[in-house]
Amino acid sequence: MQSFTQLVSDFSTYFNIKHFPVEPASLYHPSDYFLNIGGKRIRPVMCLMGNELFDTISDDAWHVATAIELFHNFTLIHDDIMDRAPLRRGMQTVHEKFGENTALLAGDVMLIKAYEHINKVGKHIHRIMNLFNKTASQVCEGQQLDMDFEKMPEVALDDYLHMIELKTSVLIAASLQMGAILGGAGEGSAGHIYEFGRNLGIAFQVQDDYLDAFGDPGKFGKQVGGDITANKKTFLLIHALAVASLEDKVSLLQQLATNEPDKVEKVLAIFKKCGVDEWAMQLKDKYLSTAYQHLDDIAVVSSRKASLTELAKFLVQREY
Amino acid sequence: MQSFTQLVSDFSTYFNIKHFPVEPASLYHPSDYFLNIGGKRIRPVMCLMGNELFDTISDDAWHVATAIELFHNFTLIHDDIMDRAPLRRGMQTVHEKFGENTALLAGDVMLIKAYEHINKVGKHIHRIMNLFNKTASQVCEGQQLDMDFEKMPEVALDDYLHMIELKTSVLIAASLQMGAILGGAGEGSAGHIYEFGRNLGIAFQVQDDYLDAFGDPGKFGKQVGGDITANKKTFLLIHALAVASLEDKVSLLQQLATNEPDKVEKVLAIFKKCGVDEWAMQLKDKYLSTAYQHLDDIAVVSSRKASLTELAKFLVQREY
Repeated sequence: MQSFTQLVSDFSTYFNIKHFPVEPASLYHPSDYFLNIGGKRIRPVMCLMGNELFDTISDDAWHVATAIELFHNFTLIHDDIMDRAPLRRGMQTVHEKFGENTALLAGDVMLIKAYEHINKVGKHIHRIMNLFNKTASQVCEGQQLDMDFEKMPEVALDDYLHMIELKTSVLIAASLQMGAILGGAGEGSAGHIYEFGRNLGIAFQVQDDYLDAFGDPGKFGKQVGGDITANKKTFLLIHALAVASLEDKVSLLQQLATNEPDKVEKVLAIFKKCGVDEWAMQLKDKYLSTAYQHLDDIAVVSSRKASLTELAKFLVQREY
Repeated sequence: MQSFTQLVSDFSTYFNIKHFPVEPASLYHPSDYFLNIGGKRIRPVMCLMGNELFDTISDDAWHVATAIELFHNFTLIHDDIMDRAPLRRGMQTVHEKFGENTALLAGDVMLIKAYEHINKVGKHIHRIMNLFNKTASQVCEGQQLDMDFEKMPEVALDDYLHMIELKTSVLIAASLQMGAILGGAGEGSAGHIYEFGRNLGIAFQVQDDYLDAFGDPGKFGKQVGGDITANKKTFLLIHALAVASLEDKVSLLQQLATNEPDKVEKVLAIFKKCGVDEWAMQLKDKYLSTAYQHLDDIAVVSSRKASLTELAKFLVQREY
């Protein structure tokens, strides 16, 4: 059994090859560029970990892990176009550097390349591809709902949760489950590892939203309050709008309508007044404990689950 | 053996279902909208014909035919974004009607949906998917080259041919070949049907370029001279620039730089002076006769090839 950090290192080395042909360079250079700017490679490693939970890691698990990382990069390239994002991981996005049309096609060939690796899978090909296709559609649905929600004045918590599940959680869940399927997991265990990933993914997003508002600026990688400045719908804002007194709700909506220098400070004050910070930590803990329950229920000796626990801690239980 | 027109009618009925879920409607309504505006459904029918050449049409052939048509529609939605096209088949394009972001995602889910149908294929799944992936990448390469060429002052005929092959011919060739593989074609016959399609595709494009300039306005669906007005690189323009006298070349380039009311007339006069019309017909015949040669070489009684001959005539030997 390998540790989470060891697998991240192994996968990063394995993935660090030239994935595309040389010509036409106008298409494939941008694709290679984007893969080279890095990433945490967490999702493919989840596939390897899901696999190693049941068996030694197989070639098919490496193929699917590669497909997952390519798929994830496809979504990032296209999401960046839709979000008009200038930077990704501190580097120029593909559409910013090479133009929107090329970014569109670079994303398309990235998705097709993912399927090339899926096609290397042996006996479980139909089951893997079925899950891969379903998950891929769901991620697109999540992105569409995210865009829809940005245009709406208010979003119900359940709807936001559903969107986060589609946009973030199902890929984490499916990555783990595809590894497990390839490792020979039974139906029960495959279900539990999926639910572990789905709940972990939601807990991760709650944590992410929390840190953007309440994180320690010294430890948090991004500028604290970025979501507030951008009026981004987050777990925090949605809950605050739902529970605030009429007075607080009015002043919150006023802040959303302006861009005063003290906007972040004032919104945070309302968040705290509404108890949004504690609520968010409780929500995170709720999903995290459900995730751990499913991890417990997987029919494998607990010593094999150490790296998945390490992963969960890495994703969610960061102090900052 | 069914006729080409009968198969077009059968496939159109078969394909005329709701392909996507209801929710989220903001994503799937645009996808369904685009499939409903129609299309000639030639590529999927080629898959069925390739299949019927060797056997009665199988369920797997219908699945792959469906995947091919969905893939083709994916490319159209994304190409329309890149080309900023307002209309397709006389109807609003997806990005024009629903916005670019939704069109981007609608294309993405269309491609994923294509793979859902590929995944229904039984014993030849790996071979089919390998060809499908390779072809899909090539079509993207062709689109990128097409965009690259539009920005270049002059393009060599060989490079243009290569682009047309990627953008148009390989999907026609692969559609036929996938049907043939599913029908149990041997390697030789599978190669010949691919080459039949590839050469037919090029002949079709030459014909298409020819008709845009020299077609009978009463019979030709589009406005004659549209490519000339738009300075589109075509077989005709590329050849004219290559063979024209210095004087003719200068006046051709002058016409490209202007948009005078008599531009089409003047460019056509130079085309005719350079013998571009006859050259194009000879080029078309060259590819067509190579296509027929490969059709002859397929190891199947010639009576089974009647519908493929009908198809070739439909595509290329139109009088107008």
